[in-house]
Amino acid sequence: MPTYNAPLRDMRFVYHALVDGDSLHELPGYEDATPETVDAVLEEAAKLCRDVLQPLNRSGDEEGCQYENGVVRTPKGFKEAYDTFVEGGWPSLAADPDYGGQGLPHLLNTLVEEMICSANLSLGVYPGLTHGAYRALHAHASQELKDIYLPKMAEGTWTGTMCLTEPQCGTDLGLVRTKAEPSSDGSYSLSGTKIWISGGEHDLAENIVHLVLARLPDAPEGIKGISLFVVPKFVPKADGTPGERNGVNCGGIEHKMGLHGSATCVMNFDGATGWLVGQPHKGMRQMFTMMNLARLAVGVQGIGLAEASFQGAVQQAHDREQGRALNGPAYPDRKADPILVHPDVRRMLLTMRAYTEGMRALGAWVAKEADVAHAHPDTSRRRAADDLVALMTPIVKAMFTDLGYDVTNLGVQVFGGAGYVRETGMEQFIRDARIAQIYEGTNGVQALDLVGRKMPANMGRSLRRLYHPIAEFIQEHQDDARMQDFVQPLAKSFGRLQTVTGWLAQKGMSDREEAGAAATDFLRLMGLVAMGYMWARMARLALENEGDDPDGFHAAKLATARFYMTRLLPQTGALMSAILSGKDSMTDVPDSAFALSA
Amino acid sequence: MPTYNAPLRDMRFVYHALVDGDSLHELPGYEDATPETVDAVLEEAAKLCRDVLQPLNRSGDEEGCQYENGVVRTPKGFKEAYDTFVEGGWPSLAADPDYGGQGLPHLLNTLVEEMICSANLSLGVYPGLTHGAYRALHAHASQELKDIYLPKMAEGTWTGTMCLTEPQCGTDLGLVRTKAEPSSDGSYSLSGTKIWISGGEHDLAENIVHLVLARLPDAPEGIKGISLFVVPKFVPKADGTPGERNGVNCGGIEHKMGLHGSATCVMNFDGATGWLVGQPHKGMRQMFTMMNLARLAVGVQGIGLAEASFQGAVQQAHDREQGRALNGPAYPDRKADPILVHPDVRRMLLTMRAYTEGMRALGAWVAKEADVAHAHPDTSRRRAADDLVALMTPIVKAMFTDLGYDVTNLGVQVFGGAGYVRETGMEQFIRDARIAQIYEGTNGVQALDLVGRKMPANMGRSLRRLYHPIAEFIQEHQDDARMQDFVQPLAKSFGRLQTVTGWLAQKGMSDREEAGAAATDFLRLMGLVAMGYMWARMARLALENEGDDPDGFHAAKLATARFYMTRLLPQTGALMSAILSGKDSMTDVPDSAFALSA
Repeated sequence: MPTYNAPLRDMRFVYHALVDGDSLHELPGYEDATPETVDAVLEEAAKLCRDVLQPLNRSGDEEGCQYENGVVRTPKGFKEAYDTFVEGGWPSLAADPDYGGQGLPHLLNTLVEEMICSANLSLGVYPGLTHGAYRALHAHASQELKDIYLPKMAEGTWTGTMCLTEPQCGTDLGLVRTKAEPSSDGSYSLSGTKIWISGGEHDLAENIVHLVLARLPDAPEGIKGISLFVVPKFVPKADGTPGERNGVNCGGIEHKMGLHGSATCVMNFDGATGWLVGQPHKGMRQMFTMMNLARLAVGVQGIGLAEASFQGAVQQAHDREQGRALNGPAYPDRKADPILVHPDVRRMLLTMRAYTEGMRALGAWVAKEADVAHAHPDTSRRRAADDLVALMTPIVKAMFTDLGYDVTNLGVQVFGGAGYVRETGMEQFIRDARIAQIYEGTNGVQALDLVGRKMPANMGRSLRRLYHPIAEFIQEHQDDARMQDFVQPLAKSFGRLQTVTGWLAQKGMSDREEAGAAATDFLRLMGLVAMGYMWARMARLALENEGDDPDGFHAAKLATARFYMTRLLPQTGALMSAILSGKDSMTDVPDSAFALSA
Repeated sequence: MPTYNAPLRDMRFVYHALVDGDSLHELPGYEDATPETVDAVLEEAAKLCRDVLQPLNRSGDEEGCQYENGVVRTPKGFKEAYDTFVEGGWPSLAADPDYGGQGLPHLLNTLVEEMICSANLSLGVYPGLTHGAYRALHAHASQELKDIYLPKMAEGTWTGTMCLTEPQCGTDLGLVRTKAEPSSDGSYSLSGTKIWISGGEHDLAENIVHLVLARLPDAPEGIKGISLFVVPKFVPKADGTPGERNGVNCGGIEHKMGLHGSATCVMNFDGATGWLVGQPHKGMRQMFTMMNLARLAVGVQGIGLAEASFQGAVQQAHDREQGRALNGPAYPDRKADPILVHPDVRRMLLTMRAYTEGMRALGAWVAKEADVAHAHPDTSRRRAADDLVALMTPIVKAMFTDLGYDVTNLGVQVFGGAGYVRETGMEQFIRDARIAQIYEGTNGVQALDLVGRKMPANMGRSLRRLYHPIAEFIQEHQDDARMQDFVQPLAKSFGRLQTVTGWLAQKGMSDREEAGAAATDFLRLMGLVAMGYMWARMARLALENEGDDPDGFHAAKLATARFYMTRLLPQTGALMSAILSGKDSMTDVPDSAFALSA
């Protein structure tokens, strides 16, 4: 397993210089987010990840979770590591001070979460979901429920889950069958089976708080008849400590491709006591609070695994000696040159780096806007920020997890045969990364969300939150000679994006299938352009700092930006061609093309 | 695990109609390859794969190979299945009748191998490697060695291996350290350690024949001092049966991402008796006979896993009901529509199908030319065929394994969460497919082989074997109205390929790093155009047969061809842009870009 060291230099660059995270400190509620505090938090988190979480990553994968008679044991060391995590106050980092939180920005939390995902994604899933459940309760639950649950969840002594999926329903939650019957005391009795519940049962925390989608007896059919309930594993006593065991039990865990240390549970609700969160039949809207946050968090998993794999690959490219440079030995005194001398190995490493740092930059911009949307005193500024976050959420989720997966695959490729062997830890990143393209809404569903919901929303207002800054940046730098290598490719790809957007607005309005056929390619096109914009901004900062660059950080940024512009951004041309060819190649297809020809 | 049924309809189409495999029957040695025999063989192979090999695929993955004290046990049922395989005469299908073979075409064997890879790749690795070792011995060993080993290997009672890699050397075989000391009786004593030896030790066969690269005492340094030896596990007695145990032992097996039923062994040679194959110090050339064949065979693994995954995905798309079609319910009487109604699901399925059938078609063309190169009485026809095979070998190996991997990933995506669970068998295809991009020369090495060796070879003669037929096809059909949807995109992408080829010939000649920087993108560009050519040919055949199409086979071909042309082939534009931007973005990069910024 490669040693993981958090990319603090890049994180500080992104936080302080690129997205001006320090300005958050002026917003009400974020007063504590001074540059010094931010750096101290990043450094402490880096230590925790390196010393506590990462050493358990491979052993956790090998051992996996064990299920017996309703009990789930997490891998050796997970409980102790989680205790350390809780003692360090990490679950409360971005939680509300009214409920014991530290009130630090989401932006900072995102960088910390990236580290956790790099170090030990399986372990990170438990607190990650807890934070999502915390946010959903914070937004929608009654004061009474908040007072009971939020402090415990902010503390991390209780964890949270999201119980949506049932055997017959995943993407289509309108098919939920779990029932909630009202009891005389104002609580509800829930019955049904939920599957693929991450952290549904485990031995890390003293209580588990399930957020459950279910139907009330008078519920309308479909998606408009779903309500949200909170169902604790142990019903809290009056003093707030866990009381009686509730009627919710784990019926088994899945054997999965990866993420072995994260328990994926079948949860049986058998007359379990629950409490309604928010209004009846509005459960989907409430759950979306949690899902949107979870989608951003899943995107961050893509960054984290990409970074971890990149670190391993860079090390290997320096260490492994094999063959000679194409134009003659680079290290004639050695038996062979390190494989880093080969352009094709550099191509792989630069692809990994360009995507990883590009995702971090783009993710940070979105995370900062989420903080602005949350805390800015000005309504229109809040709304503008919220628009951007809404627009970018499917891109962060889908593109980041796709690219994260691709990067982990490149990491194995750099290792060659050794990457396929479990011992090196490189293939685990692939296996752990694969689920992120699926859960919290498959990436195809994200693409539909983008073209079907986010783009048309508010007459294209959200879209302008992305397009305007890009257009302004291009205009501002179009005569800057040093910026030509970056502005020209950006302008070209942005032109493609605008062409396709216009086409889609026209076609997709009258025919939703046209939008559906274009969706996945369009999401990638927009995402690559947005990432290109971030790379151009990073290049500008690097050029400004070129003279004072003792560690070569800015030189590396410039080189990586150039690689992105020349080698990766041209994909936008192929995506445009594919999209403009229209839906017919998918929809005007005989049934026989979807039957086996055997 | 999805049920596997060999795509016999498509295989017959490819064999008989597309590449005119029936003409092989007129070549000396292939007289038995009548259309009737070919179809009978395909049908029998399909039964074997469905009934014997495929049922052990998932259990083999779960159980894996077990190592204890030098002994390797394959998963339950593998031995019996292998016995059935041997009793059916399958190992001898394409072997020389002089040594007990059936002398059937490589083309036919390739289709059978594809089936085996679909059904149970782990089990297929043992006979696959045996056939490669058989071919190397057939080409280079003395008559005496041939008489001893070839009949047993053709029979399958003895299996073969390829012992190249050592801890310090993989790609760079010039670093081989294993020593061979001459003994007084004409044999050699070999000492050294080989790693990652597929099938190095197992319980399937009565003997294992290792082909080993080693150095003689007087060997020059590097690649020109490598000789090839045959080292049997049991030294054959005078009567040809296995005799004394030789000094070669398995020191352990690797724990890998996938391919669990295939034993990947550390092999220790401790004064093992071996015999020189061919001339001293010419081992690399001899091993290349095996490696070239193995590279084509590895490409076929990509097809096989893609097909298996496609079959699972098509089934799932019909069975899984979730959500509604975008333009309104397609099956209003059901609770939800099958996910097949969604353009994005169709995009995934058509991508899988277009690549899988495109690979099968292209692979069949190359395999047929290999037969022509082997058996045609006319020297210049033989040479022309050999040129094409040499040129296409790195493309078949690299592009097919890359696309095979991509297709298995799409298969999991179509399944959603269920694809990530081991139970469905879909994620196993990903894990099994991943190694094919690495072994027998990483795909980056294949790309270097293409641009550095195959393209410049014989002043571009090999290249013309691909470009001329494409140019002719375009010219022949450029005025055919019904072919416009296929010929125009093909011509456009072929124009790009020619542009880039010219650029590369000019740049790469003076600077090998330019070729190295372009290599991977160029291989994909050439491969996609070659596949486009095969899709255009298939479209023409489908148009010819459109009137008589009871099962919709030809309609499906046309639809898939259209999808390929509009949605996949445009990638060639992005590849061209990337390549023409030159090497600087990879080579003119500061060291800091390859260091961690932490």
